[in-house]
Amino acid sequence: MIPFPEVLSRLSGSFELSVGATVSGDFPDAVRLALPGLDLRPGDSGEIDVRRDPALGEEAYRLTAGSRGVEIVAGGRAGAFYAAQSLHQLLPGDSYRFTERASWPVPGVRVEDAPRFPWRGLHLDVARHFFPKREVLRLIDLMALHKLNRLHLHLVDDQGWRVESRAYPLLHEVSSHRPRTAVNHHREPAAYDEVPHGGYYTLDDLAEIGAYARARCVTVVPEIDVPGHASAILAAYPEFGATGERHEVLDRWGISPAILSPLPPTVEFLTTVFDEVMGALGGTPYVHIGGDEVVLDHWAASSEIVSYGESLGLAGANELQAWFLRRLADALAERGARAVVWDEAFVSGGLRADTVVMPWRGMGVGRRAAAAGHDVVATPVFPLYFDYAEASAADEPMAIGDAITLADVAAFRPAPPEWSDEERARVLGAQAQLWTERVPDARTLDYRMWPRACALAEVAWSGTGRDGFGERLAEHLGRLDALGVEYRPLDGPRPWQRRRPHRPSGTRVADVMARIEAMTHDPESTRPSV
Amino acid sequence: MIPFPEVLSRLSGSFELSVGATVSGDFPDAVRLALPGLDLRPGDSGEIDVRRDPALGEEAYRLTAGSRGVEIVAGGRAGAFYAAQSLHQLLPGDSYRFTERASWPVPGVRVEDAPRFPWRGLHLDVARHFFPKREVLRLIDLMALHKLNRLHLHLVDDQGWRVESRAYPLLHEVSSHRPRTAVNHHREPAAYDEVPHGGYYTLDDLAEIGAYARARCVTVVPEIDVPGHASAILAAYPEFGATGERHEVLDRWGISPAILSPLPPTVEFLTTVFDEVMGALGGTPYVHIGGDEVVLDHWAASSEIVSYGESLGLAGANELQAWFLRRLADALAERGARAVVWDEAFVSGGLRADTVVMPWRGMGVGRRAAAAGHDVVATPVFPLYFDYAEASAADEPMAIGDAITLADVAAFRPAPPEWSDEERARVLGAQAQLWTERVPDARTLDYRMWPRACALAEVAWSGTGRDGFGERLAEHLGRLDALGVEYRPLDGPRPWQRRRPHRPSGTRVADVMARIEAMTHDPESTRPSV
Repeated sequence: MIPFPEVLSRLSGSFELSVGATVSGDFPDAVRLALPGLDLRPGDSGEIDVRRDPALGEEAYRLTAGSRGVEIVAGGRAGAFYAAQSLHQLLPGDSYRFTERASWPVPGVRVEDAPRFPWRGLHLDVARHFFPKREVLRLIDLMALHKLNRLHLHLVDDQGWRVESRAYPLLHEVSSHRPRTAVNHHREPAAYDEVPHGGYYTLDDLAEIGAYARARCVTVVPEIDVPGHASAILAAYPEFGATGERHEVLDRWGISPAILSPLPPTVEFLTTVFDEVMGALGGTPYVHIGGDEVVLDHWAASSEIVSYGESLGLAGANELQAWFLRRLADALAERGARAVVWDEAFVSGGLRADTVVMPWRGMGVGRRAAAAGHDVVATPVFPLYFDYAEASAADEPMAIGDAITLADVAAFRPAPPEWSDEERARVLGAQAQLWTERVPDARTLDYRMWPRACALAEVAWSGTGRDGFGERLAEHLGRLDALGVEYRPLDGPRPWQRRRPHRPSGTRVADVMARIEAMTHDPESTRPSV
Repeated sequence: MIPFPEVLSRLSGSFELSVGATVSGDFPDAVRLALPGLDLRPGDSGEIDVRRDPALGEEAYRLTAGSRGVEIVAGGRAGAFYAAQSLHQLLPGDSYRFTERASWPVPGVRVEDAPRFPWRGLHLDVARHFFPKREVLRLIDLMALHKLNRLHLHLVDDQGWRVESRAYPLLHEVSSHRPRTAVNHHREPAAYDEVPHGGYYTLDDLAEIGAYARARCVTVVPEIDVPGHASAILAAYPEFGATGERHEVLDRWGISPAILSPLPPTVEFLTTVFDEVMGALGGTPYVHIGGDEVVLDHWAASSEIVSYGESLGLAGANELQAWFLRRLADALAERGARAVVWDEAFVSGGLRADTVVMPWRGMGVGRRAAAAGHDVVATPVFPLYFDYAEASAADEPMAIGDAITLADVAAFRPAPPEWSDEERARVLGAQAQLWTERVPDARTLDYRMWPRACALAEVAWSGTGRDGFGERLAEHLGRLDALGVEYRPLDGPRPWQRRRPHRPSGTRVADVMARIEAMTHDPESTRPSV
């Protein structure tokens, strides 16, 4: 079972669970959603009985399967859902397929389980490449299977804007597509595919994604990454930029100097977009506002922006950026949501106390954020950036660098033992990032995401990982096969998964990581050299 | 409503159909599958009541919706399923999304409906480009929505073999992938993408596809295209080829001379593969064996093959080919399935009387096949080859030729009025073909298939099309939007759908079609010049 529960003991006895069996008690809809092929019917007494125990945490559960049926005790709807996911993993792998089978054997077991961390996330960059709604829904299904509960959607970057705006329609009309895409590494002279790329989610799509996720105990965390990474926005609305110049939706990779202005019209624009996105999602407790890799040159060069900063009593562009992000976080707070930022925004200082920090540049800066009283979600490049190759081998598909292995992820500890108890208490959980510069389609997404995300799920649920991950994963891959997930085989890519060949760098990502992490002590240093 | 029913009258009154409502009577599972978002419960009496009337055809139904609920009378399970699909189309388009809505309004209507043709098909070439299982399942969902009921899967061609074989594992290990793919027109010097491509369905996947389709009243028609188009097979098992030479899985388009031998080991190989595929699908009434675009030069040049033909009393390669296809059709008949062939096999002569003919080279040869007593499925290039562009415009994505418009499809008549009654009685129906040389991914598949397949569904269901197709389609596109189908907008591609630009040919496909059709009078002429 992945993630492995706190306690799992085999009991004698087993029973045959029929398709069309009855689920009784609390949260029948959650149990039915987790076992769609079983076509369970809600009823007064049934083969599966669920009772709520308010003494348990919302996500905690106990599961007993014996010869008489299945009993579930759950702290809340999520606990019932996860109990049913665990029950599903006790059935044969083919239960993840559409079949005409009439019943499934359930072995006798007793499970007691609760997650170590409340934030168990996957990030998907839908800006660099767009993934149709159905692929997002499928990712939510796969997250639910792994008891992952936060989907961080990176909705905008220099290379595209991915959501309808009724207030600012040029965002989806203009910013949502580019005429071509660079297909090689960003340090080489760009080579292009000459194939237009684009797409966006309508607000109705986003509402559907939100509802679909909510039903599966997944919270969508939308990211509107500002003030940098703004080329796509500034292709549509240059008036919100620091220079007023029109940019183009970027067709190549790397960090662009395109930056929004911090002036009131930009704040008005962004809060309007927040309202649209949050409204479509049906409310969301978190909105990510980026704050990463910002190049402030254009702010420092603009007399209007400089004097605006001075009028606020701020010394320089860096303080103005901190003010700008705090202004947006305040606007989110008025709307009932907490801001989430990348770690640069913490280093720049001035965050609201309730802002959640994602330390991508390493756990060192994460620890400092935690020590300063911020909630932290562990997101370090090493080992949680899944756009890195899984092996330093020439038959791996092209990646930004190498290597982050399955074992690296499985060995990760979101709350390191060397941190103080207070610091560790600030760790909300862990999240894997999938940046998609080199993930042109959903088949490649599968390859990059799985099975590393299985290991992420294991450590985010248990905190420390459990014994026997390798053996359990071998069985688990049968479930992914049944679901048609084109994961990376443990012994390397299938011939058609090689795509453009990777050139092994000879540099370990852990060494690169140490260099990136050193930069986190310098608030002016925003240009990582990966 | 698309396809439009025989009779549709609006009645006064309406009612609100609640999520979780009860469906009673016959075929509750079929009704529930057609309305997945309504989460219907089977029960003794309910808001939706279904009764079987053996006097109706299996696919025929009557539907009455009024203030008291919905009454369905169906000839069989398919009729109940289609009644529920019609009911679904009476609900707002958002009912095709996952929502948290608790009920939907149903207007008062009376519908009487039955299909004109029993074969309403889509063909998908998964050999030139592979589409993951989930995309095949999604296509089946879309077919069901349109009351289409035959999915013809072109499982093998020169460019790939797409199904696991436990008896001949090199088929999926070797024949299932190629190192690169030509990205331009087959008459130009090949330009390649240098990206490996491949994939295959496991037999478990095929079983799942078969079961999923069956539940939705869709019959899968697998195609093992022989004896030509054999490069991929001969990359793995050259011993079954006419020359014994090893070929490579083709990375470019056009017709290859690679051909299987007609000798007994090849027949044994193919019948073993038939057993595997048919076994996985859980039995299938039809297996397509190709017979198209065969280049017989290697047979005529092989003394072993020539003398084998002579030993059977056959005069020349052409008669041997007819014998070979009949031998395979006999093997299928022993297994309870009818063979389906492309029209070249009819022109060559010697088919079993029960073999179904697909006249891709035009309705002229289709009429001759019907006159000869063969059942015929109308599949002419014009207007049913959806790999042709939908407009002769430079902003269309690259296509094999131009143009086959939505209006061309809507105007098609599967059983032309000028045919005799006997000839028309032989027409099983119509099927659109999607060859995928220039359909590299599922997003492009959507663009090519829809909304032309809506028009195909309309004429295959009604025989003649119905008034108001354009207005009904405008509403219907809202359903496709809700489902996330990236169809071609009526006014042309979205910016990111342009892909590699199409160069309008200046030649109308109807004129090309006349040239192709002329070739059907010559059994030796198998090299169309499209």
